[in-house]
Amino acid sequence: MTVQIKPYKKNFEYGYSFGVFPTMELLENRPEDVIKIMVMEKGLENEGVQKIIEKCRREGIAVEIADKAINRISKKENNYTVGVFRKYTEHIVPGNHLVLVNPSDMGNMGTIIRTALGFKVQDLAIIRPGVDIFDPKVVRSSMGAIFKIRCEYFDSFEDYQDAFPENNIYTFMLNADYTLADAKEIKSEPYSLVFGNEGSGLDESYFSGLGKSIKIEQSSLIDSLNLSIAVGIALYEFNR
Amino acid sequence: MTVQIKPYKKNFEYGYSFGVFPTMELLENRPEDVIKIMVMEKGLENEGVQKIIEKCRREGIAVEIADKAINRISKKENNYTVGVFRKYTEHIVPGNHLVLVNPSDMGNMGTIIRTALGFKVQDLAIIRPGVDIFDPKVVRSSMGAIFKIRCEYFDSFEDYQDAFPENNIYTFMLNADYTLADAKEIKSEPYSLVFGNEGSGLDESYFSGLGKSIKIEQSSLIDSLNLSIAVGIALYEFNR
Repeated sequence: MTVQIKPYKKNFEYGYSFGVFPTMELLENRPEDVIKIMVMEKGLENEGVQKIIEKCRREGIAVEIADKAINRISKKENNYTVGVFRKYTEHIVPGNHLVLVNPSDMGNMGTIIRTALGFKVQDLAIIRPGVDIFDPKVVRSSMGAIFKIRCEYFDSFEDYQDAFPENNIYTFMLNADYTLADAKEIKSEPYSLVFGNEGSGLDESYFSGLGKSIKIEQSSLIDSLNLSIAVGIALYEFNR
Repeated sequence: MTVQIKPYKKNFEYGYSFGVFPTMELLENRPEDVIKIMVMEKGLENEGVQKIIEKCRREGIAVEIADKAINRISKKENNYTVGVFRKYTEHIVPGNHLVLVNPSDMGNMGTIIRTALGFKVQDLAIIRPGVDIFDPKVVRSSMGAIFKIRCEYFDSFEDYQDAFPENNIYTFMLNADYTLADAKEIKSEPYSLVFGNEGSGLDESYFSGLGKSIKIEQSSLIDSLNLSIAVGIALYEFNR
């Protein structure tokens, strides 16, 4: 694949991992998709960069000193290394899933991916439209966890359900039949934890009757919890 | 107080709330500290801005149409309104507390403040050095929740403990004596939930013997949870 190192756009066939930690995760988990690794000259002394270079040597992956290219695609940050990788598509597999309907915040998405992995949920379904998981902001905020999960986009929730009819659906919404404290009684594997968009949540009419609706009890002092916090608490409770 | 509307700096005696929602929270919770409200001309049609203007009229707070000033201090965002407020210092009060040791990420801080409020913990202690809670990034990411909590800085953890010797200390760290699943047996009010810096966590030698140490059980697939997620899960469990 010929790549032009330009600021990332969604329609690119390749993406970038900025920083030592995410780039190491890329090399360890998706070596077959790495196109090349770029490093800054001043990063050559860095221990993490040296490990990356060694790993590339062992795996026969190209490493370039490319200060100009890195500066061209970095925003403000100082990046010693950038991985360039071929985007890939995956299918999620049967088991417990996290389902995000129309997620739009890239920082949230990365944090959520990392949190899901922390609670052993390695399959993420995104109902379109949704944020581009290969955007460098997502890759970075996931700390490279993106390379350890399976992620699949679906055009509608129905399409997702048709693919996994055996899953028990739990929809998280403010107006719900159950509270998360009930989880130990109502949870049943394989489960799908379903969350709506950061701003608008789940459309109630659409989701009624799909499964069991759950709210996370919270004070009236705030409108709602941040999406990534709500997902984290739900994953924690379902993983108990 | 004479204010010059310039990009925010930590040493300013005043701060800014960007956006309709945080500015309404400012007006509702700290009206005595509002210096003035600025609005964009094109925002005058906006329902939220109109509510803000009405409220200012009732409370005798100055409103200025100030497109240039707003553009000067906004980064990329499009803000219809900005509140200018006098910074205030507060003392936290006896009860359950959240204690953050050397927090450094502004977005995390705002999310954490909002989450604490959601779980009825309204007193936040920050052990210096720590992020400036009046930075517009914190104010914004808290969605204005900053104006509903009490926050106090302490020079050291000892200073905090001297002020609240009756609190039961729970330190969150990866290498701990208890897991969060034990919380229902070991939790005792008033409690202080103590978390370290985003990158380095709590210094173990320093915190040993201070209280009960707790870890949030997680898979080995990630190094650690994001700080705001860990705080959210702990608050949820202690609030059960």
